[in-house]
Amino acid sequence: MKDFKYYAPTHVVFGKNTENQVGELVKKHNGKKVLLHYGGQSAIKSGLLDRVENSLKQSGIEYVKLGGVVPNPRVSLVRKGIEICKNENIDFLLAVGGGSVIDSCKAISSGRFFEGDVWELYLKKAKATKYLPIGCILTIPAAGSEMSDGSVITNEDGGFKKDYCVDEFRCKFAIMNPELTYTLPAWQTACGATDIMMHTMERYFSKDDDMEITDSIAEAVLRTVKEQVQIVLKNPTDYNSRAQIMWSGSLAHNDLTGCGTSGDWATHNLEHELSGMFDVSHGAGLAAVWGSWARYTRSENMARFARFAVNVMGVKQDFKSLEQTAEAGIVAMENFYHSIGMPTSIHELIGREITEKEILEMADKCSNYGQQTIGCLKVLSREDMAAIYRLAK
Amino acid sequence: MKDFKYYAPTHVVFGKNTENQVGELVKKHNGKKVLLHYGGQSAIKSGLLDRVENSLKQSGIEYVKLGGVVPNPRVSLVRKGIEICKNENIDFLLAVGGGSVIDSCKAISSGRFFEGDVWELYLKKAKATKYLPIGCILTIPAAGSEMSDGSVITNEDGGFKKDYCVDEFRCKFAIMNPELTYTLPAWQTACGATDIMMHTMERYFSKDDDMEITDSIAEAVLRTVKEQVQIVLKNPTDYNSRAQIMWSGSLAHNDLTGCGTSGDWATHNLEHELSGMFDVSHGAGLAAVWGSWARYTRSENMARFARFAVNVMGVKQDFKSLEQTAEAGIVAMENFYHSIGMPTSIHELIGREITEKEILEMADKCSNYGQQTIGCLKVLSREDMAAIYRLAK
Repeated sequence: MKDFKYYAPTHVVFGKNTENQVGELVKKHNGKKVLLHYGGQSAIKSGLLDRVENSLKQSGIEYVKLGGVVPNPRVSLVRKGIEICKNENIDFLLAVGGGSVIDSCKAISSGRFFEGDVWELYLKKAKATKYLPIGCILTIPAAGSEMSDGSVITNEDGGFKKDYCVDEFRCKFAIMNPELTYTLPAWQTACGATDIMMHTMERYFSKDDDMEITDSIAEAVLRTVKEQVQIVLKNPTDYNSRAQIMWSGSLAHNDLTGCGTSGDWATHNLEHELSGMFDVSHGAGLAAVWGSWARYTRSENMARFARFAVNVMGVKQDFKSLEQTAEAGIVAMENFYHSIGMPTSIHELIGREITEKEILEMADKCSNYGQQTIGCLKVLSREDMAAIYRLAK
Repeated sequence: MKDFKYYAPTHVVFGKNTENQVGELVKKHNGKKVLLHYGGQSAIKSGLLDRVENSLKQSGIEYVKLGGVVPNPRVSLVRKGIEICKNENIDFLLAVGGGSVIDSCKAISSGRFFEGDVWELYLKKAKATKYLPIGCILTIPAAGSEMSDGSVITNEDGGFKKDYCVDEFRCKFAIMNPELTYTLPAWQTACGATDIMMHTMERYFSKDDDMEITDSIAEAVLRTVKEQVQIVLKNPTDYNSRAQIMWSGSLAHNDLTGCGTSGDWATHNLEHELSGMFDVSHGAGLAAVWGSWARYTRSENMARFARFAVNVMGVKQDFKSLEQTAEAGIVAMENFYHSIGMPTSIHELIGREITEKEILEMADKCSNYGQQTIGCLKVLSREDMAAIYRLAK
């Protein structure tokens, strides 16, 4: 088991009607004037935003609203949020939404006291030293941003998608009411489940084979989400299934499933370029490339892919061939993706054949023009990245 | 899934030689003058205390030492610690040891600013409003106190053992180096594993059957500890097995295995009276009564005991009889206890027959003379408690 640090300080408040506690929670964390950050119309139409505003008012918390966060959140809106925070003396950020809204809040948090442009932080050219505290009301279980230290932002000028991770990004509190996810469309529910599972799989597929406790927890998360998303797609208002997906989403990405292992993250890196270029859903992008990544890298630890096949996908072990068992697990996962409406290739994802030029452009960007590798199970060069995109075509 | 709160803010620093980071960590958490609290000779003999003192000195942290914590830590030493904190202007408590040392620190933390006697807090006659911060270097994986909100203290005047739980008791940091546990005697290793498993089982055996993610994580913890303790008893310096038991101990009791369920805790309550009266090891006391508790209560949720039998103990399901499957699981658990040297009855635990008078006295104390019940799977009256002690005779 590798040395590790684990830090998950977020106050989780989980259950029905918990959004009505938001004013009280902001107050407990010393917030006096809040930037209320959200996405589009759904938070307004559902009445959620009204309930949030009422709760803030009841606790005597002032607030300024900033909506308009889109999937793959844009740095332009982040810059606008930073300006508001400066002009309005905002001292607490409240995200009402999914990972995009929370990530947008995190970027605002890091840029508030930073003297340069916030994008420099995401380019790792600088590190912020002071941050605004963040709380959230989660409405889409997927990104795990409610307990994670990470944030991913898209620079629309060039289609770059970059991450920045610091402990200060961990939310002070996360309000999770599974009922708020009843109205999520099937597509978004499936994308979310895919993302949750991938956060676990990125940590699970490593060369380390000496962390049974972490592996078995990871398998528990994977089996649970796989089962429960199928129930939810049939019955969108199944509280218990929605609840288990929601909580699994946090556990998949608060580092619990990675304690003592080395994360791979190549699939995420490959996907970031896909959604940067084609603005597709992150979850769907992951599903489109995972099988190809798995087949390209599995020889690095075939036993682990076989273990995944048996313990997660319920595949019968082929005792004569580890490779056959591993392959059956990958096929079962791809069948599962199809069963929940996810693509398993880039042409299914974007609705047309991808060109060689596009593949090379993505590999260029993903490798920073050959200057960096990705992955850990198998370290991938620019050429490997292009080969996986081609396999996933 | 029941509504829940989850809060696990402890900075975990896990791995080899991590104890040398203690000075730096105390400093990071604003400690300037530390009460260095520990148990007997083992921390001195092993050189651990020297390394800790060196690290504190290197970081410019002053400290006052207070050793002498014993298993089932005494309120008399807690009172002494509180006096030292007051006289010496201590601003940070550092526990070097297992659950007893950490729990003693927690009691000192709660009593430091409390005007009455600290035992009043454990009798729930009052609640402290200000606490000293605590950090720990864990040397015995068992109690889970390094991430939990609880503390259990024994009042030697009357043999009472009581708990007090507040979020302020959660350690600011927990340093965990599995190598520090290499020298634990087999008996203590087995008692620790039993305690870890029981913290999970107390939460697992409930009437709720709608929290698959929590159940499957609990089963992962139980299977891991069960397997790894058998490896460690054969090879006490197996780093990976020691590491997995250590980390499981924290996860078993930081509330992760209880999210969305109702904890039972009757076995712990029944044991507290046993160790209060006979000063036995907590883990051994738990093993001595668990089987009797299980047989007395299982009809409340036979399916769950059957699930435990199959998913944790690897028992083959008897499809014709849920009860037979459940019973086979309890027997398998008792066989496991014996295999690691744990008792499964009170006479094995204390080395003689317990008297009816003693049974009634324990039931009296455990029920606060008939004024309170224990348990949740089955709510137990004073008479039920006595019946379980008799079954476990």
